[in-house]
Amino acid sequence: MTRPSEHDLIARYFAPVAGEGGLSLKDDAALISPRPGYDLVLTVDALVAGVHFFPDDPAGSIAVKSLGVNLSDLAAKGADPVGFLLALALPSNWTEEWLEAFASKLGAVARTARCPLLGGDTVRAASGLTISITAIGEVPKGQMVRRTTARPGDRICVTGTIGDAALGLALRGNPDWSSALSAEARHFLADRYLHPQPRNAVAASLRDHAHAAMDVSDGLAGDLAKLVGTAGLGAVIETDLVPLSPAARAALARDPSLLDAILTGGDDYEVLCTVAEEELALFLRSSDRAGVSVSVIGTVTEDPSPPVFRQAGGEQRYGVGSFSHF
Amino acid sequence: MTRPSEHDLIARYFAPVAGEGGLSLKDDAALISPRPGYDLVLTVDALVAGVHFFPDDPAGSIAVKSLGVNLSDLAAKGADPVGFLLALALPSNWTEEWLEAFASKLGAVARTARCPLLGGDTVRAASGLTISITAIGEVPKGQMVRRTTARPGDRICVTGTIGDAALGLALRGNPDWSSALSAEARHFLADRYLHPQPRNAVAASLRDHAHAAMDVSDGLAGDLAKLVGTAGLGAVIETDLVPLSPAARAALARDPSLLDAILTGGDDYEVLCTVAEEELALFLRSSDRAGVSVSVIGTVTEDPSPPVFRQAGGEQRYGVGSFSHF
Repeated sequence: MTRPSEHDLIARYFAPVAGEGGLSLKDDAALISPRPGYDLVLTVDALVAGVHFFPDDPAGSIAVKSLGVNLSDLAAKGADPVGFLLALALPSNWTEEWLEAFASKLGAVARTARCPLLGGDTVRAASGLTISITAIGEVPKGQMVRRTTARPGDRICVTGTIGDAALGLALRGNPDWSSALSAEARHFLADRYLHPQPRNAVAASLRDHAHAAMDVSDGLAGDLAKLVGTAGLGAVIETDLVPLSPAARAALARDPSLLDAILTGGDDYEVLCTVAEEELALFLRSSDRAGVSVSVIGTVTEDPSPPVFRQAGGEQRYGVGSFSHF
Repeated sequence: MTRPSEHDLIARYFAPVAGEGGLSLKDDAALISPRPGYDLVLTVDALVAGVHFFPDDPAGSIAVKSLGVNLSDLAAKGADPVGFLLALALPSNWTEEWLEAFASKLGAVARTARCPLLGGDTVRAASGLTISITAIGEVPKGQMVRRTTARPGDRICVTGTIGDAALGLALRGNPDWSSALSAEARHFLADRYLHPQPRNAVAASLRDHAHAAMDVSDGLAGDLAKLVGTAGLGAVIETDLVPLSPAARAALARDPSLLDAILTGGDDYEVLCTVAEEELALFLRSSDRAGVSVSVIGTVTEDPSPPVFRQAGGEQRYGVGSFSHF
């Protein structure tokens, strides 16, 4: 079997995904002419087969996740996407079918997010597929939303729903509680694990109203501990206010011990932020207008211990590192 | 053995390498405030254990090569370094000693090149070490030196010396010709393979005087074929004018068949460029002032066949893809 050279592979599969700054992927570098009055925000996330996804996940799903996790970082920083660079280490058994499906879905996500491919590198992997994406976004000068700038008294908000992806991953082991779910609910949870939906629509609302933000990739509890911890602060969360999908509620009703997995499991790719009390109504209205659901789940405190999750009958603390992809 | 968390590892080893835009690596993204009147140039290169370097190469050497190959791309585009992002996939047997040596040398190269670490991601590798670096550079608006813009009649120039790295790699197999070399010459060639010396000092001269440029990473012959090929042009090279180090000359004197390896072997990390005849003297003076040796080795032609390498007794053509890391 003859396979295309790196040059042919780029021309065939990746050039169609490229934006203007990618120079048709015929040069050795990408070119960005930054808009006057804007800062650039850069983030890199690497995804490894067997660590961040299953090697036999569909190629298109791997593409959605690879770009999605980076778009999610931009969203949380209040940045609008400009483009991305892709370093792709392919295992020796790659096929053109795989690559076509990967590139095609990558292109679809890139177009939807207005985040074109600007450049990349394709190499042979040591063994498993490894995808490293650097995403570039822009914010009006000085308006990147930091992780480190929460203030005591800020209300803590989170987009979408929490824990679906962790349950979707757990479903692969056919746990007892899965029998309590409809086929539709199981599909929903599995899809939330496979296909992150980055919240780029909320970026402008965050810039306008949030004190601090980060995306939830390593679990709500652990990431909240990082968010307030870097500011030397703490948090109190009302566990009942943490937004759950109907599918997650059904699973939790069958097996209440799933609460830990919901609060500490990874791959939510929602935005966690802190907003001053007096900005809260404006933030909620703005994010609602942007089509992103936001829940208020707690408050930033001056107590630098790990955040407290309160519920009827007690409370629970989870530290940083309750979940990690590393 | 307890090992540091990703958070501790970043704080301990990588925060000291970080520049201002890296926000002490305490945020989820890097921040760049582009200088008015400048474009940004971005490039990504991934290096994989067993493909681009030997897994037991010294950690410091792997660091030098990882950042060096990206700095080399910036140099060839006429861009001055701004900073870089690092995605590091560590094999399960990583040690703190290894990481300390890697980060320390990475920091030394970054400081010398004025190219600080801006952000990164550390993940578990599928098996072997994989390092993906995205480097960002700046050029005055509109002055990035393209790969695609060579013109017929341009003189073809190359920095430094060619073929040393390919011979340094070949030395590891203890070839017959190695006995003709002094210990010093062997060390020189091995070092040229391990430690690329990116030609960032020549970036401004390229901006001012070159029509087209790229760095030589996949062999002079193959990269020249790409450079002129993307412009629909060809080239004639006087093989005797290709600059060789004394060590490479000694090896070639012992085994004349090494010429192919010298002209097609990878990892030179020199800059290949085309310069109009009337700019040539200015370019040579400017690069000399910058401390970078430049040799004029041939001429761009209108014949779109693969470049011709002429020497006493005949000529040779090498196509694109005569060498590839992929």
